[in-house]
Amino acid sequence: MNSFGLKFRVTTFGESHGKAIGCIVDGVPAGLKIDEEFIQSELDRRKPGQSSLTTARKEGDQVEILSGVFEGLSTGTPIAMVIFNQNQKSRDYNNIKDIFRPGHADFTYWNKYGIRDYRGGGRSSARETAARVAAGAIAKLLLRELGVEIKAGILEIDGIESKSIDFEYAKTSEVKTLDKEAEAKQKEAVLKAKKSHDSVGGAVLVKAFNVPIGLGEPLYHKLDAQLASAMMGINAAKAVEIGDGIESARKKGSQNNDAITKDGFVSNHSGGILGGISNGDTISAKVWFKPTPSIFKEQKSLNIKGEEITYKLEGRHDPCVAIRAVVVCEAMMALTLADMTLLNMSSKMDYLKRVYSS
Amino acid sequence: MNSFGLKFRVTTFGESHGKAIGCIVDGVPAGLKIDEEFIQSELDRRKPGQSSLTTARKEGDQVEILSGVFEGLSTGTPIAMVIFNQNQKSRDYNNIKDIFRPGHADFTYWNKYGIRDYRGGGRSSARETAARVAAGAIAKLLLRELGVEIKAGILEIDGIESKSIDFEYAKTSEVKTLDKEAEAKQKEAVLKAKKSHDSVGGAVLVKAFNVPIGLGEPLYHKLDAQLASAMMGINAAKAVEIGDGIESARKKGSQNNDAITKDGFVSNHSGGILGGISNGDTISAKVWFKPTPSIFKEQKSLNIKGEEITYKLEGRHDPCVAIRAVVVCEAMMALTLADMTLLNMSSKMDYLKRVYSS
Amino acid sequence: MNSFGLKFRVTTFGESHGKAIGCIVDGVPAGLKIDEEFIQSELDRRKPGQSSLTTARKEGDQVEILSGVFEGLSTGTPIAMVIFNQNQKSRDYNNIKDIFRPGHADFTYWNKYGIRDYRGGGRSSARETAARVAAGAIAKLLLRELGVEIKAGILEIDGIESKSIDFEYAKTSEVKTLDKEAEAKQKEAVLKAKKSHDSVGGAVLVKAFNVPIGLGEPLYHKLDAQLASAMMGINAAKAVEIGDGIESARKKGSQNNDAITKDGFVSNHSGGILGGISNGDTISAKVWFKPTPSIFKEQKSLNIKGEEITYKLEGRHDPCVAIRAVVVCEAMMALTLADMTLLNMSSKMDYLKRVYSS
Amino acid sequence: MNSFGLKFRVTTFGESHGKAIGCIVDGVPAGLKIDEEFIQSELDRRKPGQSSLTTARKEGDQVEILSGVFEGLSTGTPIAMVIFNQNQKSRDYNNIKDIFRPGHADFTYWNKYGIRDYRGGGRSSARETAARVAAGAIAKLLLRELGVEIKAGILEIDGIESKSIDFEYAKTSEVKTLDKEAEAKQKEAVLKAKKSHDSVGGAVLVKAFNVPIGLGEPLYHKLDAQLASAMMGINAAKAVEIGDGIESARKKGSQNNDAITKDGFVSNHSGGILGGISNGDTISAKVWFKPTPSIFKEQKSLNIKGEEITYKLEGRHDPCVAIRAVVVCEAMMALTLADMTLLNMSSKMDYLKRVYSS
Repeated sequence: MNSFGLKFRVTTFGESHGKAIGCIVDGVPAGLKIDEEFIQSELDRRKPGQSSLTTARKEGDQVEILSGVFEGLSTGTPIAMVIFNQNQKSRDYNNIKDIFRPGHADFTYWNKYGIRDYRGGGRSSARETAARVAAGAIAKLLLRELGVEIKAGILEIDGIESKSIDFEYAKTSEVKTLDKEAEAKQKEAVLKAKKSHDSVGGAVLVKAFNVPIGLGEPLYHKLDAQLASAMMGINAAKAVEIGDGIESARKKGSQNNDAITKDGFVSNHSGGILGGISNGDTISAKVWFKPTPSIFKEQKSLNIKGEEITYKLEGRHDPCVAIRAVVVCEAMMALTLADMTLLNMSSKMDYLKRVYSS
Repeated sequence: MNSFGLKFRVTTFGESHGKAIGCIVDGVPAGLKIDEEFIQSELDRRKPGQSSLTTARKEGDQVEILSGVFEGLSTGTPIAMVIFNQNQKSRDYNNIKDIFRPGHADFTYWNKYGIRDYRGGGRSSARETAARVAAGAIAKLLLRELGVEIKAGILEIDGIESKSIDFEYAKTSEVKTLDKEAEAKQKEAVLKAKKSHDSVGGAVLVKAFNVPIGLGEPLYHKLDAQLASAMMGINAAKAVEIGDGIESARKKGSQNNDAITKDGFVSNHSGGILGGISNGDTISAKVWFKPTPSIFKEQKSLNIKGEEITYKLEGRHDPCVAIRAVVVCEAMMALTLADMTLLNMSSKMDYLKRVYSS
Repeated sequence: MNSFGLKFRVTTFGESHGKAIGCIVDGVPAGLKIDEEFIQSELDRRKPGQSSLTTARKEGDQVEILSGVFEGLSTGTPIAMVIFNQNQKSRDYNNIKDIFRPGHADFTYWNKYGIRDYRGGGRSSARETAARVAAGAIAKLLLRELGVEIKAGILEIDGIESKSIDFEYAKTSEVKTLDKEAEAKQKEAVLKAKKSHDSVGGAVLVKAFNVPIGLGEPLYHKLDAQLASAMMGINAAKAVEIGDGIESARKKGSQNNDAITKDGFVSNHSGGILGGISNGDTISAKVWFKPTPSIFKEQKSLNIKGEEITYKLEGRHDPCVAIRAVVVCEAMMALTLADMTLLNMSSKMDYLKRVYSS
Repeated sequence: MNSFGLKFRVTTFGESHGKAIGCIVDGVPAGLKIDEEFIQSELDRRKPGQSSLTTARKEGDQVEILSGVFEGLSTGTPIAMVIFNQNQKSRDYNNIKDIFRPGHADFTYWNKYGIRDYRGGGRSSARETAARVAAGAIAKLLLRELGVEIKAGILEIDGIESKSIDFEYAKTSEVKTLDKEAEAKQKEAVLKAKKSHDSVGGAVLVKAFNVPIGLGEPLYHKLDAQLASAMMGINAAKAVEIGDGIESARKKGSQNNDAITKDGFVSNHSGGILGGISNGDTISAKVWFKPTPSIFKEQKSLNIKGEEITYKLEGRHDPCVAIRAVVVCEAMMALTLADMTLLNMSSKMDYLKRVYSS
């Protein structure tokens, strides 16, 4: 239940304030160059404390590979990666250990398991996404060998839309926005929320370019269904759209169908997926994130004894989780595509003959 | 790849115009009363030809149980169900056997597998959803024993929203709408599309009532993630929202958090899920469907030789697939919850002791 | 739980005296020629009533393919096969419906599920192996395309060993024996047991020739471990040996190691598997079957009320289940190897490049 | 492929001479007391260097829990455990880096993956079994809460059988033997092999006492099939017997059937399993291990260039791997039973009602 993928399979572990978080990546084909610097650089993109717009919590997020790599190459055996937690400050959380923070998993973990590691949200903390990013980096390295590139950026913050789409700009933008023009307003919305002890939501656009035709395993591991699962499973995600998504549902069939020519599809309303299988066009998804539930206003809730309480949270939190989710969306796209790439290899006898002929 | 669920596991088979479609439902606990009439009645809700708003194709959709039931009760062994195809009219499809219909899976199946059963879309036909509905009916029977009820209806057609939510009304509505007031306009939009040889999209709202707290297996089988996968995997689905979905992403944290009191949650923006686990409130999802890709206007496409062609589809198709998807959404909700119900049984030692004490 | 294999995946259904038994074979690569006559001929090899040495029950075992095949080729979609039960004679079993036959699954099914389809053993009947044989036939077709051949025969009956190994002879032998010289005595042992209302055990030798190097997924889906699971899961199997098996455990390392030369391995004590991976030599396993538990002598047991009883079974049963298990062992070997063949396709980057280069 | 179990699921990582080995145990019910000292004590039972009969390599095998445990209890989240490698001596292995040691996985890993971590056998080293033992210890803790106990010992070494079965004696015996009388001869056989630079095989008997009726998921996750897979997957295992195993195959049905009385089964030829499901009697399996392939005599083999060579291995190796496999067999029995215990929880509606009634 803590594993993602069937053939390129990631199993993660770790709590926000435990000793370490990490993952095992199983199913990586042998002979892939494992660029440790790249993995670390991906983690650095996710880590908090990078600007006034994200949480002040400093995490080194130094990744260490424990297995599965020999002389710089994957060996086909499981790649274990660990990130030891350094800046744990568990005392911050003593005041919340007996209460259920609204919008958080406190209440459900307590009821499901009868116990919870309350320190920083424990397992339900977005800190776990560092493990996804590390695994996703390996998936990206694999996909790159096939020419696939994944890009993402902020499409909306607090209702303020990115009208132009510039993935290059998003890379260096403080709010990872896709639209230079929208950046000031988006940033202002975040800061305003922060100042008023509140939070805002947002959306991420994530795309995969140059994806081979044929990825996706109908009918219950369709590419779009698995992307939906991958994205909706990210902390705070509340909606996923493929291609034009909801907009498609408001068009006529004659407007929404993508005509096919010798040069490819004339339009890409479908988001590069037909019948759950990649069609060779750019894969595209939008992921919508709720505002951070950790706010610093007074809220009503229950404690674990079932008593009603009023409390005010303290600590350090991102006023807009969507920003740091950009790199996580990329990671989940990469993990999904890497898995689909491996699963697709036995789709036809012709491929078997290519592999088993010497 | 043609299986859904881990513990309550459905594997489906069958093509639109093959001999039969059907499924094996594995993992059904023994001792469940299997009401065959109920299963058939669910299939009758899905079957086409019920009104001028859906395809004229007549399918008997008579389900037959082949195994796993003895003297009216499930035995704990796999329940196989089969629906023989009767009204196949394969000749209808000879004219499309060499072309890729825009918006359909023809192009991707051909490229992935190098062969396709073109008759009626083959495996990619929505006909397969009959198998889901049959399996979903068994899931509903199981959930009912625990008090869970699932309801769904049309939330929007062609941009025309259902403002009030009346699941009882949806049951008998010709367009399965949730809003009596909106029905006339929604119906008109469908008929207008049909008349102009076009199609329209729509949205379904699906809810599960009285769901136990604790369903959902973090972190990679979260209830919301699995619902997203289940719903996005339905033919023509392009977006899935949990709870308030996109609306949540446009609110402040202080507006979106659901306060907790002794009497439960004050609001239900979350859609009954926190941290990927059901919180005891009503589970709620919205699923958005693109307009039927099968339209009867001239379209541009390729044939399997790679030549550009112009063609006009003939045949019988729903001008709005969302309508018949209502019961499919219910089925996928039921399958997801039944699976989660079984998976959750080993979440704590206390449960083990309840089961293994005699 | 009723599925075998991860990528080449068979899910079976059906009870001995229900409407039908059958299976869904998922993951068959597209473009495989599906020879229905071959599938039927494999079922004919398994079916009872072929001689005085096996049960007199006549089963037509006519297989019907419901999906997944188009114009003679697999399409990459699930292949469903069904065998309707014809000669059910359920009345035969009314006398045992309340008792637990020793050596049978009656007692455990009743305790596990609280209900059991007592007719002919229900799901626990060896009749289910017909579904395995049908699926195994498809696996054999796939493996043949890669040059792999599977052969099996009787190695021992009632302690009487087959000293020479002649797979050709086994094909036509009434007891499927590998040794013409041993046949008379083996046959006599079976007939003697039959006459004295008793039964005898036996062993099957199963080999796979020309298997590619590299099959098997360490460390928890090793080829030998999966073969052990596949074989031990056959009705009445009580032991599995790989290669020299127990004999290896009684040798010195210097005797047991297979030296390697340019022309291959000098000996094959290992049974073609090293570290859980095929080494290019012949795969070899021995499977040991207990004597049929259905005997016609008086036995002591309990009824479902917990009362001690003495009873005498009636009906028709093989006095030696090992004989008909020969073709089942072949099927399980084929299913295991087909699955491993597909799983191995992503073992190295080189294979990915072969598949994804156009 | 590096995971074992479906619901109580262990994923291991690590190579013999890499930075660390370890595992993630997923699916442990919340509220289980995690006794770290017990886990360490199990590892201490496995670790080498304990006597003149096992390898001289010293491994601290100090286990560290990184996640999933809070205030001494399991939290329902993944339990990660790591054992850092300390005494690596990689230089020992430079002389074998280009050759394929007979009887080892060198040849198959090289052919499957095109690369191998040759240091100490890399992933194929029995060192990995330490991770299984750590995970198995948690499984044992869970099973103990239900009253289940697992015991094992040496049944045979180099053909010298343990005629009496004394699990208490095995605990402190230098060769873990079950028979005090056989110990001297068994020990002598090991020492003689060691002195002559050779090795010997052996067998382990492993039993589970007080196992609930009903464990095992027919038809493809039968308890005996999964035990066969679990045991055959241990390094150097070549045969697995359930209950009387091969002996059963040489008896008559009337001798082999276990009669049932009010007080339980009169005999236990079946090894506590009927139809793949535990019957309440003691579970019993025998596992046969080949002699250690690492011997110090001259052997013929190939190098990675395909040239024939003669070489003599150096280093430190157990002359009889069966001895240290005793605790590994226990671990695999525990992992199998823990998984089956969780899987069985949804076998009947009655259990659902016990869990979901409040």
